[in-house]
Amino acid sequence: ANSVLSSYSTTVFEVMSQLAMEHDAINLGQGFPDEDGPLELRKIAADALIEGPNQYPSMMGLPELRKAIADHDKRFYGISLDWKTEVMVTSGATEALSNCLFGLIEPGDEVVVLEPFYDCYLPLIKRAGGIPVVVRMSAPDWKLPVEELDEALTQDTKLIIINSPMNPTGKAFHWDELEALAELCLRYDIYAVCDEVYEHQIYDGREHYPLITLPGMRDRTVRIGSAGKSFALTGWKVGYICAAPELLAPISKAHQFTTFTTPPNLQKAVAAGLAKDQSYFNNLTADLQKKRDYLASGLAEIGFDVLKSDGTFFITADFSKLYKGGDEKFCHYITTEAKVAAVPVSVFYDVEGPNNLVRFCFSKRIEVLEEALKRLKKAF
Amino acid sequence: ANSVLSSYSTTVFEVMSQLAMEHDAINLGQGFPDEDGPLELRKIAADALIEGPNQYPSMMGLPELRKAIADHDKRFYGISLDWKTEVMVTSGATEALSNCLFGLIEPGDEVVVLEPFYDCYLPLIKRAGGIPVVVRMSAPDWKLPVEELDEALTQDTKLIIINSPMNPTGKAFHWDELEALAELCLRYDIYAVCDEVYEHQIYDGREHYPLITLPGMRDRTVRIGSAGKSFALTGWKVGYICAAPELLAPISKAHQFTTFTTPPNLQKAVAAGLAKDQSYFNNLTADLQKKRDYLASGLAEIGFDVLKSDGTFFITADFSKLYKGGDEKFCHYITTEAKVAAVPVSVFYDVEGPNNLVRFCFSKRIEVLEEALKRLKKAF
Ligand SMILES: CSCCC(=O)C(=O)O
Ligand SMILES: CSCCC(=O)C(=O)O
Repeated sequence: ANSVLSSYSTTVFEVMSQLAMEHDAINLGQGFPDEDGPLELRKIAADALIEGPNQYPSMMGLPELRKAIADHDKRFYGISLDWKTEVMVTSGATEALSNCLFGLIEPGDEVVVLEPFYDCYLPLIKRAGGIPVVVRMSAPDWKLPVEELDEALTQDTKLIIINSPMNPTGKAFHWDELEALAELCLRYDIYAVCDEVYEHQIYDGREHYPLITLPGMRDRTVRIGSAGKSFALTGWKVGYICAAPELLAPISKAHQFTTFTTPPNLQKAVAAGLAKDQSYFNNLTADLQKKRDYLASGLAEIGFDVLKSDGTFFITADFSKLYKGGDEKFCHYITTEAKVAAVPVSVFYDVEGPNNLVRFCFSKRIEVLEEALKRLKKAF
Repeated sequence: ANSVLSSYSTTVFEVMSQLAMEHDAINLGQGFPDEDGPLELRKIAADALIEGPNQYPSMMGLPELRKAIADHDKRFYGISLDWKTEVMVTSGATEALSNCLFGLIEPGDEVVVLEPFYDCYLPLIKRAGGIPVVVRMSAPDWKLPVEELDEALTQDTKLIIINSPMNPTGKAFHWDELEALAELCLRYDIYAVCDEVYEHQIYDGREHYPLITLPGMRDRTVRIGSAGKSFALTGWKVGYICAAPELLAPISKAHQFTTFTTPPNLQKAVAAGLAKDQSYFNNLTADLQKKRDYLASGLAEIGFDVLKSDGTFFITADFSKLYKGGDEKFCHYITTEAKVAAVPVSVFYDVEGPNNLVRFCFSKRIEVLEEALKRLKKAF
């Protein structure tokens, strides 16, 4: 068995979801909405199954969807993409990331990641033959650690992975942080792989700025998006990659030999979704912001120190006033005793992360969040 | 960019499908049926989209589908699988193969493949850090080259990839060949990764024998299946892997970090498909056999030397009596001039394959095959 992959255990999201089920706990662990996205999109996908064809679509994705992605990125961010050479559909954003890392990394390349990071980054980098260089961010502001980045970057750095809005912290990088990032990418002549799956989950009136829009970044940035997140249909596993042709070409070879294509009926529906007008996305954001605020204030009332979340489905909170013991123990305790599942933040760290933070997913109906808060209140 | 992946061009299947479209040619290149599989299954999948949930299912696949896979393998082959630890769903058989190779290969491991081989094997082996050792089979019988295999296998061999029924040759290994294979696997103490996606496309009353059922092979064999092939829904990209727990564990880590999950509505429908009774599979086989025979005799009439095909969607034929020039030229010629696309067999070889063979896909309506034959007849 491969030693890199064998060293990893089952992802915490799966483990906590299973534990939640076993204990009949409300699952605020794994990040997914508890209400499916637009019925209208699901109907388009369903009709396409009946009408067919249900055979291999083009390897890069349905032209219809690739055009819709290009249009979306033009409309929201002013990015001009050639859909034929700069847009590719993937079977989810995880596949997109895998494609980027296997397609771009040559064994021995250094890859810089900001910590805490989403759990697939490190195993993918290592399995692709890259050498991860981890730069830690600090609570509670998760400010971009520019000096540490400058130190971490070397001549052997191939690329940096940027996740904004960021899972698990909820951090969305500010314009000046993105400027600093761009300056570093240019100075060290590296690529940026931008996991922007939460681009439409950004709150408090803030706007998402894709790193690819910054001066000098157009040809060195890979932008990854996710229909699952943008349309509350995480099971569909439709993601996409936008990048300059020279970057997308090797990435598309990885895709060609990984999943090759993505179900055409789902692609068709996602194309319709991306064409939705601003109000759909505004409502999505407004609804999630309400849920974030509701959960955050409820947790604060119970005695959690709630950290600020700019975006994503998540808030993190310090539980040390309520519980003595590590974050894994805490999550096990609340899942099995309070019957509310959450994810320990230390799993997003390579070694010795903070032990006092828990991540809650707030993309759930208000009644569900209410019941979760009631249960937590009772337990503490 | 990664040098292994960058060295590959766009897969011939995609290239020929595009060329066929541009030239309004009948596409007998890429392997897919031109009629979608059971409406009943598509309805189940469509209803599940409307009913939901459309969120992440379990990482290993829907329990319902994993049970159906285990039941199918019990019913058809007498294999007893524990669905919880020995069955995993993937986003297509290509992902399954990728998971197996990345999960099992440690850099430096030798991996034996029989040539001609399906086009993703070599790039995946190399990108996973393995060293491909290619053993060539010979037309027209494509007999298992036991002596050459014995020579190719070494102490450093980790695994062998076996594709039966085999793409592009249509060869289905006979019992004595499988026995020889098993003997070699045991003697050299290696794994067998069995790409058996055409298990239900085997003709002339022959039965498919999974290598995993041979004595001593149960714990060293990985069996890969494909709903796309078995239910004529290639766009669905639902595949699966059956293997002993110790083998499946590292493979599942690769899956976890590649696609993580597969659309639940498609999984649900495939579960229903696998429960279909023998007559469905018999009809599928009988229908395809008729198409194979129709195309084979038509090609022979035109002057092709048609090779025997035991299974798959494909027949190969020697065109040397009709055309002087290589197989790539020949395929380009018939696509653009005769308006019938096919695939050159040399692309299934690492270096210097035969130059006189073409692969035709026969999983098309009889009228379509008829028209293709008419066009070819006119051209020669
Ligand atoms: C791939 S399952 C995890 C979903 C998610 O993004 C999260 O919980 O962080
Ligand atoms: C992955 S597209 C190719 C379909 C196929 O298996 C073939 O044509 O050989």
